[in-house]
Amino acid sequence: MQAPFTTLSEFRETLAKAPESHATAFQGAQDRNSQLTKPPGALGRLEDLAIWYAGWRGNPKPQINAPQVVIFAGNHGVCAQGVSAFPPEVTEQMVANFEHGGAAINQLSKAFGATMNVHALSLDTPTADFTQAPAMTEAEVVSALQIGWAAVDPASDLLVTGEMGIGNTTSAAAVAAAVLGGDAADWTGRGTGVDDAGLARKAEVVAKGVALHASSDPLEALRCLGGRELAAMAGAIAAARHCRIPVILDGFICCAAAATLAKAVDGALDHAVAGHQSAEAAHARLLTALGKEPLLSLGLRLGEGSGAALAIGILKGAVACHSGMLTFAEAGVSAG
Amino acid sequence: MQAPFTTLSEFRETLAKAPESHATAFQGAQDRNSQLTKPPGALGRLEDLAIWYAGWRGNPKPQINAPQVVIFAGNHGVCAQGVSAFPPEVTEQMVANFEHGGAAINQLSKAFGATMNVHALSLDTPTADFTQAPAMTEAEVVSALQIGWAAVDPASDLLVTGEMGIGNTTSAAAVAAAVLGGDAADWTGRGTGVDDAGLARKAEVVAKGVALHASSDPLEALRCLGGRELAAMAGAIAAARHCRIPVILDGFICCAAAATLAKAVDGALDHAVAGHQSAEAAHARLLTALGKEPLLSLGLRLGEGSGAALAIGILKGAVACHSGMLTFAEAGVSAG
Repeated sequence: MQAPFTTLSEFRETLAKAPESHATAFQGAQDRNSQLTKPPGALGRLEDLAIWYAGWRGNPKPQINAPQVVIFAGNHGVCAQGVSAFPPEVTEQMVANFEHGGAAINQLSKAFGATMNVHALSLDTPTADFTQAPAMTEAEVVSALQIGWAAVDPASDLLVTGEMGIGNTTSAAAVAAAVLGGDAADWTGRGTGVDDAGLARKAEVVAKGVALHASSDPLEALRCLGGRELAAMAGAIAAARHCRIPVILDGFICCAAAATLAKAVDGALDHAVAGHQSAEAAHARLLTALGKEPLLSLGLRLGEGSGAALAIGILKGAVACHSGMLTFAEAGVSAG
Repeated sequence: MQAPFTTLSEFRETLAKAPESHATAFQGAQDRNSQLTKPPGALGRLEDLAIWYAGWRGNPKPQINAPQVVIFAGNHGVCAQGVSAFPPEVTEQMVANFEHGGAAINQLSKAFGATMNVHALSLDTPTADFTQAPAMTEAEVVSALQIGWAAVDPASDLLVTGEMGIGNTTSAAAVAAAVLGGDAADWTGRGTGVDDAGLARKAEVVAKGVALHASSDPLEALRCLGGRELAAMAGAIAAARHCRIPVILDGFICCAAAATLAKAVDGALDHAVAGHQSAEAAHARLLTALGKEPLLSLGLRLGEGSGAALAIGILKGAVACHSGMLTFAEAGVSAG
């Protein structure tokens, strides 16, 4: 699906005219839910999830048959500042691992019946070190947004976006700090496992980048502090909205990318739920800022879309109950 | 699988000689986990779950191919005390709904690839009203334990036990209070949705039952205050242990039944995890008493095994990652 924008400004316009949830289907799903063979509210959040999903799909009795997981990988110039416990070549090695089926996200995609696609974004050309210069030019960030947009299969019915990029918790922390405010240290975590000295260095690097690229424009923050895989995730999440495909957000890096959309245009993440709360320390803060309550909280901090992929099962269960259960009348059960 | 006991005392002996987790497989799974292509600990609780599962299955690289959901239904004499928002005939109506595939648990079992069996236990003969007499004779409780035991397929590799029984949150509250101590009101919740007056009445009924059947023996509490479906769940959980089949515990009623095993014999629930935390108020207290941290917390309060069935997806995801991922050496990824 070709992206309908060629500049950041056109991308913002695309976001602003995105479709909304389908009111009639939403109401139809609410009505159906109230008649199913269970005490009112007894399926808890599963009921809200199914009704939300029905609204976005425009179908009061929907099914989930074609979830898609898209993984974007990018390299980061800021790695020169010694912010990661792993060397940058691991990004490319892990892309090969994704392609050969050996990573966690491969197993989770298979377990929950999702197709999975991997997009390596100019790994030989890392973004610029954001403590020295903007991470990307406008052409570079727009290209990444377009790749993300084009990666979404319009025939899918649920989207998970994941990422791989050594150094990208540093980029994500900088984007979050620039877009949402607060101290750099509040947004900086251990990523793949840096020690205390590494953590302090990361926070300084984040603070330096945010000071250098101060701007009130969230898409400029994405360009100057983000990475290609963050921009691609943002593009994919926007494309899903364009196609009324619900999205499950993953961890800290995915949510930092998504936050740029929510800050650019109010309600830009209404078609998204938070799949899980990561163990990366600032993710809880980020979810609160986005107003999203996570479906799972199991201490994951892997990225790759892994937490969101695990939550596909929750959404599938919710929609299966909603659309498969009989009503009190159909089942001949007394409604209490 | 025929039950190897004919009295409560023999059932206790069966529990006491139950098999333990397989130490070599557990260690093998720990070693494997440390070599997989992810930062150490990045899959959070999924890692612990997979290793735990591997130990019980005696296989350091296990698979989940045959989950089983067994539902037991029973009727309760204590319904005469006006403790439920639904009439007792709903138990039988819901059994028919299970058999016709119309309930939530049918959809969840199907979504997560589990076989599902339903056992209606003497629905025409409710247990005695425990405010007047012991709910069951020894013959009745042993029969229910045996039915639960026999319901477990030894070829399954994961077990969920669920229940249906109008009035059974009252029985479960009485069992929990008798076995774990504390005020009746602390264990009493709204069940399918009683109002404030109903809630107060339930707490009085629970207090009366606990006072009438005071005993230090948890299996006596199961007999005098429980119900056939609670005893059958306890029997099934014990049978799973006998076969080294891991168990996912469901909500308040399942956990109250399970608590009688844990109090009868230390470690009797080591092969079980808590699938979810129910919205039934006292479930959190019950999980704390059992030392089990729930995998999910999504506000469900339906019973039927629904929360545990939803958690099958989590366990499947954990085991799929553990057994399907490549090691750093296999994938040619630098280990940091």
